[in-house]
Amino acid sequence: MIRDLTDDEARRALPLKWGTMPPDVLPAWVAETDYAWAPPVREAITAAVGAGLTGYPTFESGGELGKAYAGFAQRQFGQEIDPAWVIPSVDVTAGVRFALDVLSEPGPMVMPLPGYPPQLGIAEVTGRERVDLVLDADAEHAEIDLDGLDRLLAAGARTLLLTQPHNPWGRVFTRAELEGIRDVVRRRGARVVADEIHAPLVLDGSPPHLSYLSLEDTHDHAVAVVAASKAFNVQGLRCAQVIAPDPATRQRLLDAPMARNDSWSPLGEVAAIAAYTHGDEWLTALRSRLSSQRDLLVRLLAEHLPDARMRPLEATYLAWIDLRAYGHDDPAAVALERGRVQVSPGHDYQPGLAGHVRLNIATSPERLEEIVRRLARGLTGAR
Amino acid sequence: MIRDLTDDEARRALPLKWGTMPPDVLPAWVAETDYAWAPPVREAITAAVGAGLTGYPTFESGGELGKAYAGFAQRQFGQEIDPAWVIPSVDVTAGVRFALDVLSEPGPMVMPLPGYPPQLGIAEVTGRERVDLVLDADAEHAEIDLDGLDRLLAAGARTLLLTQPHNPWGRVFTRAELEGIRDVVRRRGARVVADEIHAPLVLDGSPPHLSYLSLEDTHDHAVAVVAASKAFNVQGLRCAQVIAPDPATRQRLLDAPMARNDSWSPLGEVAAIAAYTHGDEWLTALRSRLSSQRDLLVRLLAEHLPDARMRPLEATYLAWIDLRAYGHDDPAAVALERGRVQVSPGHDYQPGLAGHVRLNIATSPERLEEIVRRLARGLTGAR
Repeated sequence: MIRDLTDDEARRALPLKWGTMPPDVLPAWVAETDYAWAPPVREAITAAVGAGLTGYPTFESGGELGKAYAGFAQRQFGQEIDPAWVIPSVDVTAGVRFALDVLSEPGPMVMPLPGYPPQLGIAEVTGRERVDLVLDADAEHAEIDLDGLDRLLAAGARTLLLTQPHNPWGRVFTRAELEGIRDVVRRRGARVVADEIHAPLVLDGSPPHLSYLSLEDTHDHAVAVVAASKAFNVQGLRCAQVIAPDPATRQRLLDAPMARNDSWSPLGEVAAIAAYTHGDEWLTALRSRLSSQRDLLVRLLAEHLPDARMRPLEATYLAWIDLRAYGHDDPAAVALERGRVQVSPGHDYQPGLAGHVRLNIATSPERLEEIVRRLARGLTGAR
Repeated sequence: MIRDLTDDEARRALPLKWGTMPPDVLPAWVAETDYAWAPPVREAITAAVGAGLTGYPTFESGGELGKAYAGFAQRQFGQEIDPAWVIPSVDVTAGVRFALDVLSEPGPMVMPLPGYPPQLGIAEVTGRERVDLVLDADAEHAEIDLDGLDRLLAAGARTLLLTQPHNPWGRVFTRAELEGIRDVVRRRGARVVADEIHAPLVLDGSPPHLSYLSLEDTHDHAVAVVAASKAFNVQGLRCAQVIAPDPATRQRLLDAPMARNDSWSPLGEVAAIAAYTHGDEWLTALRSRLSSQRDLLVRLLAEHLPDARMRPLEATYLAWIDLRAYGHDDPAAVALERGRVQVSPGHDYQPGLAGHVRLNIATSPERLEEIVRRLARGLTGAR
């Protein structure tokens, strides 16, 4: 059911991940999968383009998209969503920015690090200071430091940007962890913007995704931002969704000037509706493939890079790998130069952090094996 | 060469303009044309979707899009553009916001009114005050009031949002007018953001479009924002272009955090490249059709609404009509209720302005005749 793109197909479908690479470099960086899109999404987009759907979207919240997402959240996460809570936005980062701009008080934003690079600039873009909550690179377990969070909020920070499942930590936070975060946030009267773009990508053996909004006593201070784009690989079609259960919060978002949030594409909307409505079976197959890829990566690292350190990858297809044992400050640069493989440098996720990379496993088993071989060749000189 | 969409086709292609209307209402509001898309654009998008182009764009400036726009600007406007000046953005309003956010000093933004409604909120979105330069509704000629502009800039405004050709004034500013604006702006050390989205839509008998950037001594204080979207009716595909000739200015835009400007769609980019490269012939036919429609509108108004007042429509397909003689504060609402035609209410373009509408002529001659008949029926009770 999951069809691997050929190299040529991948170069046409994924202009950034594949198209910008020299021909001899294998890409394992940008968060896109090397799989053909889900047939229900392809069919819906092909039909929409056949009908010449090039006009403005309707700019409505709720509606067909809201209904589609509510059904998906119910089936996938057991989460009850009122379709009216669903407000489109052009992409998840733009939705996070929109929420910060409209909802958050002016104080600093707490950013757990390492974090998704475009999020590192988002506080500045909204006129806020960014204050970092840095994960100890040597920690056995990747978790939000509640004492640190409490200190930052006590010192004036007003918003936590909570990415969960976390990229690049690969974590699915448990109910207990999320409740701990919520309790600190509530005590300090702060706000949460939850980036839940990876929610459909929880791998085998992990606890289920629990939206921050599924916890009690969160609707008054939180919105989530979700999208079909990561799971269904339609990043370029441009439609995310802000989930705003609290009526007053939602009204503030809907009352914002149009120029704050009016750039999503009707094709992105069509893709999201098709994915949320008809994508479950394909998504199950995708998770199964990604879980196999994750297990394969663990075996490949043990074989080729035994001193690499990787915490359990519970969700996403993005493995965060500690390669400090190999002695390179920038292992991504070394691997590119000597191994002809492109992984993402860890310092893009945490400025100043040496020796880490993020590696994308969403490809074929053959390519993943070659990616790890090249990484090892680059870092160790092994053949 | 210009093919009119049927009502059913228009409802599928244009979800906002047509899809949100009750079946008995004829839409003449949203700035979209009721024409099938240009074959070169349709073919390029169909091929891209066939190749599964769903990934992120390359996030490069210049490049193929820059080359395509430079060729188009040269052929269409005689304007010399270096492809490197061309920075993609998701849409024109977002590009204007991007330029204001990154380039403009914090002082107020001058907004000529009546103006495009989403622009009315853009100063607020960037944390600026909006100061209005209001066109006298009784003025014979629609022009930028240079003394008024000078006063606003002297009082602290730092940016002029200059839409040209102007929507909804329908004006193509002459070189002398643009030079007058430039001289005031330079004297006051202010900045211009020029929204030139309607540049390809100058109608027969009008002076040619002259980009603000074609004037001498403008590169140090101005950028233009352009798009293929209005002329080629691909608003929903999401790619505009910021033109920044000054290297230091361009660098400031390129150095901005990614979350400020990273949401355009690769399909929008494909559409823009196809339109700019292969669209000239179709565009010539479009302008010819729109010029005929404009002439037809003048005849229809003379026949059915002889007391309507309309300045010469030099560019765009959006006619600004003074209907105060018919005695309705909100003629759009009256026309909708009694005539079942949807035009845009003038007060959306200038808060508090009574008796005006904006009417979209980009449809078939038959529909335009019916639109004016319905408008007249609504306003006068005539059959």
